This record gives sequence, structure tokens and C-alpha cells, in this order.
Amino acid sequence: MNRRRFLGALALAGLARAANPRVNAARLRQHLEALSVFGRPAGGAFGDGVSRVAYSDADVAGRRYVMSLMEAAGLKPRIDAAGNIVARRAGTDASLAPVLFGSHIDSVPNGGNFDGDVGSISAIEVIQTLNEAGMVTRRPLEVSIWSNEEGVAFNNGVYGSRAAGGDFTAAELDLVWNGMKQSDAIRKLGGDPERIAEARRAPGSFYCYLELHIEQGGTLDKAGIPIGVVEGIVAIDRYEVEIRGFANHAGTTPMPERRDALLAASHLTIAVNEIVRREPGRQVGTVGQLSVTPNAPNVIPGLVRMTIELRDLSAEKIAKLAEEIRTRAKQIAATTDTGITIRQAAHHDSALASPEIQKSIEAACARLGLRTSRLPSGAGHDAQNMARLGPMGMIFIPSVGGISHAPQEFSRWEDCANGANVLLETILERAS
Amino acid sequence: MNRRRFLGALALAGLARAANPRVNAARLRQHLEALSVFGRPAGGAFGDGVSRVAYSDADVAGRRYVMSLMEAAGLKPRIDAAGNIVARRAGTDASLAPVLFGSHIDSVPNGGNFDGDVGSISAIEVIQTLNEAGMVTRRPLEVSIWSNEEGVAFNNGVYGSRAAGGDFTAAELDLVWNGMKQSDAIRKLGGDPERIAEARRAPGSFYCYLELHIEQGGTLDKAGIPIGVVEGIVAIDRYEVEIRGFANHAGTTPMPERRDALLAASHLTIAVNEIVRREPGRQVGTVGQLSVTPNAPNVIPGLVRMTIELRDLSAEKIAKLAEEIRTRAKQIAATTDTGITIRQAAHHDSALASPEIQKSIEAACARLGLRTSRLPSGAGHDAQNMARLGPMGMIFIPSVGGISHAPQEFSRWEDCANGANVLLETILERAS
Repeated sequence: MNRRRFLGALALAGLARAANPRVNAARLRQHLEALSVFGRPAGGAFGDGVSRVAYSDADVAGRRYVMSLMEAAGLKPRIDAAGNIVARRAGTDASLAPVLFGSHIDSVPNGGNFDGDVGSISAIEVIQTLNEAGMVTRRPLEVSIWSNEEGVAFNNGVYGSRAAGGDFTAAELDLVWNGMKQSDAIRKLGGDPERIAEARRAPGSFYCYLELHIEQGGTLDKAGIPIGVVEGIVAIDRYEVEIRGFANHAGTTPMPERRDALLAASHLTIAVNEIVRREPGRQVGTVGQLSVTPNAPNVIPGLVRMTIELRDLSAEKIAKLAEEIRTRAKQIAATTDTGITIRQAAHHDSALASPEIQKSIEAACARLGLRTSRLPSGAGHDAQNMARLGPMGMIFIPSVGGISHAPQEFSRWEDCANGANVLLETILERAS
Repeated sequence: MNRRRFLGALALAGLARAANPRVNAARLRQHLEALSVFGRPAGGAFGDGVSRVAYSDADVAGRRYVMSLMEAAGLKPRIDAAGNIVARRAGTDASLAPVLFGSHIDSVPNGGNFDGDVGSISAIEVIQTLNEAGMVTRRPLEVSIWSNEEGVAFNNGVYGSRAAGGDFTAAELDLVWNGMKQSDAIRKLGGDPERIAEARRAPGSFYCYLELHIEQGGTLDKAGIPIGVVEGIVAIDRYEVEIRGFANHAGTTPMPERRDALLAASHLTIAVNEIVRREPGRQVGTVGQLSVTPNAPNVIPGLVRMTIELRDLSAEKIAKLAEEIRTRAKQIAATTDTGITIRQAAHHDSALASPEIQKSIEAACARLGLRTSRLPSGAGHDAQNMARLGPMGMIFIPSVGGISHAPQEFSRWEDCANGANVLLETILERAS
């Protein structure tokens, strides 16, 4: 009876909880703290945030550190054509597709020390833990540290996981950002832009994809639940709204004669909020950008441009909400004597997590004695690109206060370790 | 029986309407068109607007033209220390205070051809008409073409009529705008900044002040009434509002957790409109300026700064409205979980027109067969500075479509001539 079978027998005997190995929480924390040095503000300490924008020197240095950790865990990392760092650990059956898992280490400017880092360092910690336990899974395991997840560089540019998902165009290699060409940026990471098509993974080339990540919202933290089981990554629809009134003298134009574009915009902003909130569900709607012309205290606003962004797991639901918003906008235009045009500027499909993997994660948590809650991911992740190719699942840990993309971003060390153990436990089950 | 007494006798006989002289409407138009050349856009024609900002070369050239008209009307214009052009026509009783009247010829950039110009050219036309009729009034008449009425230069700077009203500080002479010092700008017009205190007029140094002006709003035009009798120039209160929410991820922050500063600002913008409109009166309230931080489609607005401006003849009324707005703001802050601070940034007192002069203007219009309507002036005028020193009255003519401070600004030639005749008729009555 090999170790795995022995553990299986233990599981049947209800003793699995004690049987599977656990990650080294102290080492996990130490590695996260060590990684935080790359891109740390001058004179800062851990917790002062990080600026490790993709393709920056800090990103290159951080990647080198991560590769050293992979080597210490017995892996042989390679860099694919898109700049993703990938490494494989053999299973007992080389004919099987691997269980793929990982995350990213690039950050937004003045970002935090947990977004991406937790999933990346935990993926390596899982390998190290298995090494120390002398365990070999049936399926091969593959770790991927995706390049350019945040999309800050090149205002989106080539995401490593998007290239792996086959969703990229050659023209994107010619993008220029901060005097740097996208193709040269990929070369800086050790990638090969001329062969970027080779970074593409074939559908079915992995058995499933798993990613551990911080929630970036406050749902888990508020509910006191240590693990979130992600139902999927939401669809996003973005609209650009133009409201045309008439800019006139704020002193000489009587109230009933006004065609005030900002008054109309205010009604529409409230309408977006009301329409999104009035039915149950986790959908969100945001007016995040708004500009007024001519924008002077003594001139009635003649023009307002604003954005409306809608997100939900169900693309149909947000399309329906958008229709209700359009209907309300027509009424607002009529009552305020303005012209309102709403143009769809972007649509991103949702990426649903595999129901089977969600159950696997929940089962792993049950074995670990951790409470769970299902929730959608309102933010985008590398996992959504992998969902194009095979079954995907994501594990969330709480973000204290729901703060993310800021130096104050924090997840308790205990939660980080729990997340890594859930990842390990799920991998063991999936790779068996 | 001198001519004035003869006319008085005619008036008693109900024949005055035929007796008093009338301005030369064709000449009035010709002079307005000729003045429009100074500051006209290159290659433009009358109606293409004017940029005759105070202290510009176009302003200096326009003033020279106006002084030539005054000379042609037998006046001897002089430039006072503040750069105002003033000229006196003797009356039969030199011991009496003069009837003062005039307006301005400076414009906003890309302004129109009627704002200020109509009152200035009509004032000179009145003198020319009296000359041609061989009439001498009992009181002296004084024409003033005020410098820098629009306050574009030096972002307000030294208004000629404000200096005449004694409301100015020495420090204002050191203001710099477009590389020019305020004191040098006054010198450019022929003024004497070192002796600017001498431009101050003593209270009671004129019998009354009259000003003909375009309405700049659409009330008269809409009602089809040719003459507006101004009740006064409104008080203005301006407030700066800061709304602090919390900038967070628009995808990961559930709707009930949001502290959306723009949502609060939208409620407040609508509240300002509702509070101002819900009681009868001509008061106006405007949110004209609004900025959002960080202003990104995918970030919940964390900070909004906006202005609230309130105007009415009654300073008490707008103070009461402001209190209601503050009360509503507190409720909005509570329901949106934001912090709202409202700071008063400016207060301008109202300047009431003399009831007696309003009646004089109405009587003049009755004699001329012109319908009138009383209305407040929502815009500021030189008359408000003169109201500090003596009785003031203003005559408005319709602005087509209520458009002003734009090249499309237009007042029908017939209305311009009517306005000049009302000014003449009122002067004759007041100066008798």
C-alpha cells in the first residue's frame, strides 16, 4: 500500500484530517514577507505596500526570488514565451493531464502584499510540503506564476494567462508604454514574443486549474468565514453615457427654463443604484467616472459624461438591468429636458467555476474544519482565462476590511495558512 | 416757458408721448455695429461675437471709439483714476447733483455684441438726441463707461464701478494676470493707480444712477415683454461642499457595503434643486462644478467636491434655503454613510433698485406704450456698486433665447431702440 492508498484508507476510517500533511505556516509567512521587499517603497517595511508593476525591475527581481523558491522546492522553473513562470512536478502516471495551480506576483502601483502573492507563494509551499511528506500524486502537478495579471502596464497589454488562453492579437506586441514596447517587455521577463503563440495551452491540456487568492472584498471578513468558494468570475458590462443639456448663466436662467445636465446625471446615478439593488442577488452597479462641462460654479452644466459599470455572474441579468437603466434614462431625459445617449463600451463574459471543483473545495474545508461560503468573484483573475480551457476553481481568503489594491491590504497569517492548506487538500483530492 | 416746461404742459394735456424726442434707432444700431469691430474674431462679421476683455488692445481701441462718439455728442470725456470714462453735460441748475447713467464695453472672451454695449452706446445716443432736440435738463447729466465690468482680467481684479463705489483694497493693484500687473493695466486705460482713491464717488454725489442692459436671461423674450424693470440685483451665496466616502473596488464591494461619495453628491444635487424650487419666487440654486476622485469606471467614488450657488433678491431667503440644504445634507450623509462638509465660500449682498425709480421707468414705458414686467437681475452689474452711493434703477431689454456671454447673444434692434427711449424718457423725468 503506497502512502496515497494508505491515506485513502485513513480517510475511509474518518482519520484523514490527521493524515494529510499541512503546510508550514511560518515558512509561508516568511516567504511572503521576503517577496514583499521587491517593489517596497524606500525606507518602508512590510505592510507599507508594494509597487511591483509588471515588467518593472522590481517585478523581474521578485520573479527571480520566486524561481529560487521553486528550485528550493525541487522544481525546475522555465519561462514560457509569454513570460509566465511554469514548473512541473511528476506524478505517478505521466499519461495523465496535470493539476495546474498558481497565481501572479505583479501588483498595481502602491498595491498590497497579498494580492497574487498569497496564491503564488502557497502554490510553491504546497510542493515543498508534499516533498517533505514524501508524497507523490497520481497526476502531475504544475505551478504557474502568470505574468502581468494586473494589466497596469500597457493599459491592459498582454496578460500572461490570456496568452496561455489563446486570447491575444499580434498587434498587442507593438503597444508602447512608458517608452517600452510590449514585445521588449516580454523579452525583459525572459519570454519570446516571436514565439508567443507557443504559450497557448490546448483545451484539456490540464485536468483542472486551481487558484488561491485574497477576496479583495469584505464579505468573508464581515461574516467571519475563513474560506470562500468562488462560484465564478463575474461578467462585466461597461457603458459610456453622454448627457446634453444647455450651459447657461446660473444667475439669469429661471429654474423652470433650465436644461441641467448634472441634475439629469444625478437622477441617473441614483437610478443605477436603485435598479441594481432592488432585486436580490450579488450584482453590483457603479457610476465611477463623471465629468461636467463647463464645470464653473456660476454656469448651469451643459454636458456630463459618465460611466456605468455592471457586474454579475449572469451576463443575462446585467443585460436586463442595463435595459431597465435605459428605460429610466429616457424618462429622466424627458423630465429634465436633456438628451441622454448610452453606448456600450465593453463586455467581458463571466467565467464559471466547475461545480465539481466547488464541491471538492468544500469537502476539503470540511475535512480541515473550516467554514465556507460560496460567492462570486467581482474582480478578474487569471483563473478566468484558464476557464476557457478546462474546469476551474478558486479559493478565497478574507481581506481585512475588504481593502485591496492599497498598502493597507491585509489578510491574517492564519487565513493565509488556511488557504494554502485548502489548496493542498484540494490538489491532493483532484490529483488522486 | 422753456422747452422743458412746455413739454410738462403737454404731458398734463396727455400729449407728452408725441412731445419728447426719440433716439435715432438707425444711428444706435450703426454705432453698436461699429463698436463690434473692436475684438471681433479675425474674418468674422457682426454677430460672430467679440473678445474685448478689459485692458486688452481691443478694449483700449473700443474705448477710443466710444470717446470719439462722446466727443461727437459734444461731451468732453475724461478718464478717472480707475480707468472709467466719464463725461458731464451741464444742466440749467449747476447746484444740483447729476443724473448718472452708463454701462461698460468690456466683454468676456467669445462674448456677444450687446452685453454692456447697448447701455453704453444708448447713454451717448441719449445725449446726442437731447442735443438735436435743443433740450437742456434741469439737473446735470453724467455718462460713465465703467472699466472692467466682466472681471475676467485678474480673475475679478479692480472693477471700475467698484473703485467708484469705494470698495477696493490697495493690494489688488499688485495682482498679476497674463504677465500684466493690475496697476499697469489701469495705466494702459489712461487711469492712475497711485491716485485710485480719487475715483471714489461720495454718497449723494449723484441724484440717481440709471443703467440700460440686456436681460441675459430668457424671461422677457419668452413672455414677449419689451421692457423689464429691475427690482434689484440678487444676493449671491456660494458654498463649497466636500463629500468623503471610501474609494473601493467596484467589482468586489457589495452594494450595501459601499460608501459612494458620488451617490451622496447626486442626492444632494437633487435636494438643492427641490429645496430651491419648492417655494414660490424667483430664487435660483445651482450645482455647477463637481469633481470626482479617483474618477475611474471601476472604482467607487471616494471623494466628491462640488459647489452650491444660491441667488435671490432676499439674502435672508437664500440663507434659509442654505439651512434647509444643510439639514438635508446631514440626512444624506447618514443614509449613504459618507461625511459631508459645507463651507460658505462667498457672500455678495443684494442691491435693491429704488422703488421710486422703478415707478419712473414704468411711467416712462406707459408714455411710450411699452409693456413692462418687474424682475430681479440674476447677474451682477455696475449698478450694484452705484446702489451703495445713491438710488439706482435698471432697464432690461429681452435677450433672444436668453443667451448671453456667447457669440449668439442677440437683442432685436427694435428692442435696443425701445430701451434707449425708455432710458431717455426716464432721464428726462428724473433730471427735471
